[in-house]
Amino acid sequence: MTITITAFAASPDKGRGLARDMPVRWALEEAGLPYQVRLLSFTAMKEPAHRALHPFGQIPTYEDGDLVLFESGAIVFHIAERHPGLLPADPDARARAVGWMFAALNTVEPPIVEWSQAFVMEQDKDWYAARLPMLEERIRRRLDELSARLGEAEWLDGPFSAGDLLMVAVLRRLGSSGMLAEFPGIGAYVARGEARPAFRRAFADQLAVFERSGAG
Amino acid sequence: MTITITAFAASPDKGRGLARDMPVRWALEEAGLPYQVRLLSFTAMKEPAHRALHPFGQIPTYEDGDLVLFESGAIVFHIAERHPGLLPADPDARARAVGWMFAALNTVEPPIVEWSQAFVMEQDKDWYAARLPMLEERIRRRLDELSARLGEAEWLDGPFSAGDLLMVAVLRRLGSSGMLAEFPGIGAYVARGEARPAFRRAFADQLAVFERSGAG
Repeated sequence: MTITITAFAASPDKGRGLARDMPVRWALEEAGLPYQVRLLSFTAMKEPAHRALHPFGQIPTYEDGDLVLFESGAIVFHIAERHPGLLPADPDARARAVGWMFAALNTVEPPIVEWSQAFVMEQDKDWYAARLPMLEERIRRRLDELSARLGEAEWLDGPFSAGDLLMVAVLRRLGSSGMLAEFPGIGAYVARGEARPAFRRAFADQLAVFERSGAG
Repeated sequence: MTITITAFAASPDKGRGLARDMPVRWALEEAGLPYQVRLLSFTAMKEPAHRALHPFGQIPTYEDGDLVLFESGAIVFHIAERHPGLLPADPDARARAVGWMFAALNTVEPPIVEWSQAFVMEQDKDWYAARLPMLEERIRRRLDELSARLGEAEWLDGPFSAGDLLMVAVLRRLGSSGMLAEFPGIGAYVARGEARPAFRRAFADQLAVFERSGAG
């Protein structure tokens, strides 16, 4: 049985690996699992055939035999639970790693998405400049707290885990903002994630899709 | 060993059960686990003693012996994994239930939090009225999609699960908006969640904290 995931046929991030197939590809590479990718246009994502797999009409999905999953966090967890290297064996350490997965997606990511969504949708509005400091402040507060917890450690809690994978994936959305440079510990943490061979293979594969799309 | 969670000493929701201790209390009640609550002031939440448990200085936390967890999603998962009634036994169904947990917190909740945060922080700004339809539209799109997937079913995927628990907890934030009434299927789904004995016990317990606080 081959694992199949879905991804954008032409990612709006222009191959920077910010779409949500990236953490799934990365987890599959960390686990050493082969997979195939079905590319979807923005139109196809909203059609009934894809909605049957993903009720919110988004990417990625994950298919393996009869199992269909959506939500990148859940897919990464599913992979992490079944293959060594992404969750510690000790039950308490494992529970804490799952905690960092939820922290990445439910505490650190929302203000980052709000900020990038405002950039895309409201940059031409006359309130954009007035709101921007507030949006950036929400992100900086999280980065400051995350930086304090990380300290000099290599990863958030012992060895690299699915929690680090999702956290690095989330923080990479700030790449163009300059904000990571204000928190050198966080910047170095993201760079450590990006230096992992599994990340690099996943990144190259999603970039190849973008380059082949002709959108570059 | 007694489980200890943290909650607001005086919840800003005035006892409506919208703070993040609510899904944790609910999960503990579904699992039939006794627990104690340590109440925190807004000042105490940001102090080093609490930051050592929760790097982002929030509630809830979960302590059980040597294990300390934060992130309500991760705490609910931890409870669900160890006690019957919140996750199906079949591995594929279990993975899908975890998918709904992430969908609740990473797809449905963010636009709801953005909308409620704007209400609290920006209601007095001259752009608030201009932005509100956009914020509401983001929520309605999710409710429409969720409603289409739920259809006539009682719960999102087979029996009640931790995915339903978190989804209902997230949707309850819309209680004051009138938006749930636009999607009768979703409104009835939330009402089914609220009618569960475990929900009612959890709700009564958090309300009692608010009433004792004298803030009522």
